[in-house]
Amino acid sequence: MNSRFVPDEWKIIENRFEPENSKDSESIFSIGNGMMGQRANFEERYSGDTLQGSYVAGIFYPDKTLVGWWKNGYPEYFAKVPNTMSWIGIDIEIDDQQLDLATCKIKSFTRTLDMKEGLLTRSFIVTMSSGCIVEVTAKRFVSMSEPEKAAIKYSLKLSGGNGKLRITSYINADVKNEDANYGEKFWEETAVKTEGKKVVVKSQTRKTGFVVATAQTNVFCVNGRDVTDGHTDISTRNQYAASIFTYQYSSGDVIDVTKYIAVLSSLNHAPGSIESKAMSKAYEAECEGFIMLFDKHRKAWAERWEQGDIVIKGDIAAQQGIRFNIFQLYQTYTGEDPRLNIGPKGFTGEKYGGSTYWDTEAFAFTFYLNTADSHVARNLLLYRYKQLDKAIENAGKLGFKNGAALFPMVTMNGEECHNEWEITFEEIHRNGAIAYAIFNYVRNTGDKDYLADYGLDVLIAVSRFWSQRATWSDHRNKFVILGVTGPNEYENNVNNNWYTNIIARWTLKYTIEVLEGLHVVNNAKYNAVITRTALDLEKEISHWTNIIANIHLPEDTSLGIFLQQDGYMDKEQMLVSELNPSERPLNQHWSWDRILRSVFIKQADVLQGLYFFEDDYDDETLRRNFDFYEARCVHESSLSPSIHSILAAKLKDIDRAYKLYLRTARLDLDDYNKEVKDGLHITSMAGTWLSIVQGFGGMKIKNDKVSLNPTIPDAWESFSFIMRFRNKPLKVEVTERDVIITNFSDSGINIELYGEPVTIEPGKTSKLERK
Amino acid sequence: MNSRFVPDEWKIIENRFEPENSKDSESIFSIGNGMMGQRANFEERYSGDTLQGSYVAGIFYPDKTLVGWWKNGYPEYFAKVPNTMSWIGIDIEIDDQQLDLATCKIKSFTRTLDMKEGLLTRSFIVTMSSGCIVEVTAKRFVSMSEPEKAAIKYSLKLSGGNGKLRITSYINADVKNEDANYGEKFWEETAVKTEGKKVVVKSQTRKTGFVVATAQTNVFCVNGRDVTDGHTDISTRNQYAASIFTYQYSSGDVIDVTKYIAVLSSLNHAPGSIESKAMSKAYEAECEGFIMLFDKHRKAWAERWEQGDIVIKGDIAAQQGIRFNIFQLYQTYTGEDPRLNIGPKGFTGEKYGGSTYWDTEAFAFTFYLNTADSHVARNLLLYRYKQLDKAIENAGKLGFKNGAALFPMVTMNGEECHNEWEITFEEIHRNGAIAYAIFNYVRNTGDKDYLADYGLDVLIAVSRFWSQRATWSDHRNKFVILGVTGPNEYENNVNNNWYTNIIARWTLKYTIEVLEGLHVVNNAKYNAVITRTALDLEKEISHWTNIIANIHLPEDTSLGIFLQQDGYMDKEQMLVSELNPSERPLNQHWSWDRILRSVFIKQADVLQGLYFFEDDYDDETLRRNFDFYEARCVHESSLSPSIHSILAAKLKDIDRAYKLYLRTARLDLDDYNKEVKDGLHITSMAGTWLSIVQGFGGMKIKNDKVSLNPTIPDAWESFSFIMRFRNKPLKVEVTERDVIITNFSDSGINIELYGEPVTIEPGKTSKLERK
Repeated sequence: MNSRFVPDEWKIIENRFEPENSKDSESIFSIGNGMMGQRANFEERYSGDTLQGSYVAGIFYPDKTLVGWWKNGYPEYFAKVPNTMSWIGIDIEIDDQQLDLATCKIKSFTRTLDMKEGLLTRSFIVTMSSGCIVEVTAKRFVSMSEPEKAAIKYSLKLSGGNGKLRITSYINADVKNEDANYGEKFWEETAVKTEGKKVVVKSQTRKTGFVVATAQTNVFCVNGRDVTDGHTDISTRNQYAASIFTYQYSSGDVIDVTKYIAVLSSLNHAPGSIESKAMSKAYEAECEGFIMLFDKHRKAWAERWEQGDIVIKGDIAAQQGIRFNIFQLYQTYTGEDPRLNIGPKGFTGEKYGGSTYWDTEAFAFTFYLNTADSHVARNLLLYRYKQLDKAIENAGKLGFKNGAALFPMVTMNGEECHNEWEITFEEIHRNGAIAYAIFNYVRNTGDKDYLADYGLDVLIAVSRFWSQRATWSDHRNKFVILGVTGPNEYENNVNNNWYTNIIARWTLKYTIEVLEGLHVVNNAKYNAVITRTALDLEKEISHWTNIIANIHLPEDTSLGIFLQQDGYMDKEQMLVSELNPSERPLNQHWSWDRILRSVFIKQADVLQGLYFFEDDYDDETLRRNFDFYEARCVHESSLSPSIHSILAAKLKDIDRAYKLYLRTARLDLDDYNKEVKDGLHITSMAGTWLSIVQGFGGMKIKNDKVSLNPTIPDAWESFSFIMRFRNKPLKVEVTERDVIITNFSDSGINIELYGEPVTIEPGKTSKLERK
Repeated sequence: MNSRFVPDEWKIIENRFEPENSKDSESIFSIGNGMMGQRANFEERYSGDTLQGSYVAGIFYPDKTLVGWWKNGYPEYFAKVPNTMSWIGIDIEIDDQQLDLATCKIKSFTRTLDMKEGLLTRSFIVTMSSGCIVEVTAKRFVSMSEPEKAAIKYSLKLSGGNGKLRITSYINADVKNEDANYGEKFWEETAVKTEGKKVVVKSQTRKTGFVVATAQTNVFCVNGRDVTDGHTDISTRNQYAASIFTYQYSSGDVIDVTKYIAVLSSLNHAPGSIESKAMSKAYEAECEGFIMLFDKHRKAWAERWEQGDIVIKGDIAAQQGIRFNIFQLYQTYTGEDPRLNIGPKGFTGEKYGGSTYWDTEAFAFTFYLNTADSHVARNLLLYRYKQLDKAIENAGKLGFKNGAALFPMVTMNGEECHNEWEITFEEIHRNGAIAYAIFNYVRNTGDKDYLADYGLDVLIAVSRFWSQRATWSDHRNKFVILGVTGPNEYENNVNNNWYTNIIARWTLKYTIEVLEGLHVVNNAKYNAVITRTALDLEKEISHWTNIIANIHLPEDTSLGIFLQQDGYMDKEQMLVSELNPSERPLNQHWSWDRILRSVFIKQADVLQGLYFFEDDYDDETLRRNFDFYEARCVHESSLSPSIHSILAAKLKDIDRAYKLYLRTARLDLDDYNKEVKDGLHITSMAGTWLSIVQGFGGMKIKNDKVSLNPTIPDAWESFSFIMRFRNKPLKVEVTERDVIITNFSDSGINIELYGEPVTIEPGKTSKLERK
């Protein structure tokens, strides 16, 4: 795959303007800081193809459900991430002509995303029809240290004549979503205020009433001298406010505008005072100045990279790919606010609306758990905990009782948004991943208090759901779970999906185990949980125990494999290798029914379960299942190859693990699926991280210890990653010969390397032999 | 159930104006003639709640598919029956006030649908604000003898003062569909022409370009004298043309307008000359006059009733109910044009769009086969035959090859319209019903030429579909049919639906049998079929034979029942009797997933198969299956109870058969489902007919003979029905003691009564003992 981007360890560089790829680049060069984000739309006017996107975390619009045929139980709306007012706009008019890369003659163009410093820079030279040659350098960042602030420095050098320059730096709230079911406007009631140089625009979402206020202040310099006063006018109209700078330029003049931005939302501020606060904050940014503001931002990024960088030597494309993924994950979610989560497209596009899918718990969670302070992962858990009441309400709508919870398939505020019956109502395994994340967190951090204070409430509610959803079959003399969709969405409405049944059984077991553990260590908290949840110990626990002992888990004993669901072996047995390449991807070539009744698997399903619970199975069992399902998996979900890669690495099939790893490592950078224009696959990016750390690194937590089984793909000289255990960072570097482990914490850590105990002293590095 | 209508053997009478039921009555009092139809909207202006509906057969608008989540293979549009230009409009203005039943003071109101004569009459008296008392009698019919003609006689008697009368009799093409996915207009490019008293409006559907031209001519009389000339003006505007009559009335004047209508469509006329033809036809109607026109119409209805009347004595509600059903079925489809079919709402509403569902072959077909000349049923078969190429194309889109056909779930012109994957792609049993109708037709008529000339082409294409859709399971050592939805739509995407598998097997068997039969009797035609279809006798037939012998048919041997699908017995076993009545109907109270995984059945499924193939099973097998499934069937489809009723009658459980019969006998008249406002359940009406004739009458064709096993519900004194065999009509009257059979044909008929041979001489009636 030839990349459009220059190979570079820390930067994404595009050195040509390609209008046909402009929307792709808008996605790739997106910047964000967990609280807001922005596609790489141009500051100056652009009349070519573009998807304008400016997003503020936690805000949504309830877009009326669009459906062909209504099924009872469908939610009334789908929460959409609204495109929010634009704050990047800087119109440039030279000699009465708009600077517009779609129409001006371009001499050179470079765009660089510096991932180390979180800075987007764009430089280009164009010739205007007046003959004026314009050299532009535009730098922008959204502050990682002060997430309500952003800044742009837009510099122009004009040569080849004298003339008239007009710069209009504006905020525009007259925006729309491309993805609006009924073409509705999502925003209303804009207020515009000005105060000296400062302007603010306030807007409110329809129906949900979220308020966003964006303020700006601009400094205009000519040849380094601040000439704002005397050359600048403020102009406002409905939903719009601008600073307009006019100037008679001479050849050789360098003019720059520095635009200081504050974006405040009603999630964090009272709507009444939000405009004045936004103006103060923008002014505060101006007082600090671009350099100081950027320096704090750069340092915040440096701290991030210290916690989560992966270094790959000998393969620059892989290095660039994984850093891009880590960069985007950090940009999307910083973990300071338990009301926020990780949208599948983060701040890079509108598609899929909503914010939270099971992707968070099944994929992204482990990344944040290992690459940030433990409060970050904890906030992801609290997000679901805070939505527990709504999950109980949601389950109630589907006929479940007594505090049973079904967390939504897609949500913003805890209410279900999605409306495909086979997904919304049936892809219930998501409940299991939410329970698993609690286990995953406690296993890693040791924070058992979380269980007593919050976790058990969720575990009990999810267990109650499973205990009602599993029904008794006289015929089989087993509990069964009928009518589900597993992780493999190329099967719908199946019976006894192995993954769903196994995670249901595991949830019940784990909940009982946690209850028993708490009973032993803290009787008061134990009693509080029992009271709070009105758990009927005798009746409920004995029913759960009965299900644990008697749930049907389909398998094929002759093949020695678990069966994805009842009847899987009735399908026409074919292998991916027998498919006609011209019919791939299947989802673009086969009708849906044909996909459903085929053996072909969209994404890891049985293997997802074996990944979660690998220690419960011996390698031969893993191998038989891996060989069977990998041969039938078309990996048409970006979440899939990484799980297969991890299992292949565990099975010492490094070539295959590497090939699978490659399928997502640069998914967006190289636009494998020709859809990057809509935004990036943020949650899948965590999968690549998992492939490296859990796959090649062989990292897992077992018996309260870090266990490492590192290997390395032939293509790499070495790689290193950082992980956390008990909130202590460890760096693991793997070379052809060595495994070099650094303990950054102030206490010793006992780990297992290739099954052997090793102690790494505090602050020390141990060099050990790679097997 | 208290009916809103006066009990009457031949009439539907409403003797009060109830605005809250006005839309219901618009549906109930609809009139039609197979070529066009009209809801019982008022002639004069009505500002209350109304669904305007005027329909012309065979015309459709391709409404862009509305879907939440697109699945590969979905069709681009859903064919909608467009609301066509209105021709009933007669505005009445008295002393400058509009006559409007929503605002005028109503003294009396009666509406009568005379089903014997096909006449809708409305009489009412209102007082205008000027004090003028207006007595109106409006009669209308759409001609059954000349189906492009219709006429209205609208009479007013004015008393209580003198004043100004203005009558505007118009055609209005500015109409819309309530059911338009994107609010689009379906019609465009209207032309309006006038010629003397005659006016014509021409309109064309967007995209599909169907043309409809409606012409009118009006005769205005005062106290019986034609005063049209001198009092009438023609007025036209875009999409509208009217005759306006103005007159100074005196108390006691009787004014009437007779409106002669011609509705022509491009299905039968070249669009270029359609306007002038329409005007000629309207003028022709005027020349004949209302009385003559009506007399021919009345006679055409009398002929219909001679062919299909059912007389029930001792139960006037039942008599009214069945005649209403027969009346509507005859109004909807007359069988003269093989491009037409039976829409689920006929000419009574827009809902469900499309025209053709499997309802036609599975339910309505047997009605027309028995109550009309055999060319009517033959035209229903030809409808599908003519769409065979598109069915092959449709199957091709789903991956089937070599001339395999999948007829659409919903269609107008042979292209699939529907867009729910679990229905569109998976409810493939419809293909079986289409094959079964061919068998049903030949069994009854003996017209084997149809098979050689047309039927085999369809049977071979459907058999090819089944032979590819059934796949081999090594695991079971059987052929399986995976991923289907059976007639019971409360299960989706199941494996080995017994009904689907049995009808697939039957199709294969029947196709081979027909081929072998033709080989024996007409080798030339046999060879022509083989050549035409490029049938590979050796390969294809041996594969079919293999499937016939080895298809998996799920059953529970311990219960002695056939299983609706694999895994049915894994469900939580509950009975309808255990359901909380407050949760009925389930489809309004339970979420879709809950319905799916429950045992509850929407409509006959295994029992539908046993109904089709009853002679293949002994009564004990039928009884075990009936008892099992009836106890689990919620009958939430109007197609369901009649099939159960027929089987109950066969099993001599007459009370139960009668109770089931009652569930649909007056479904629309008494509006059980509170949805009659949207239109009538035309295809379900055939089910009631089947319950009486095949259920209580015990009528079937067996071994090339009519077989009768009549019984009678306690509530009835007697009932009689007419049926056809070999295109010869037979009347069967059943009383408490006797079975009286009349042979209307000119040759003797050998039948079986209660299993004993009986011969009925030509033109004779035999009175036999009822058992």
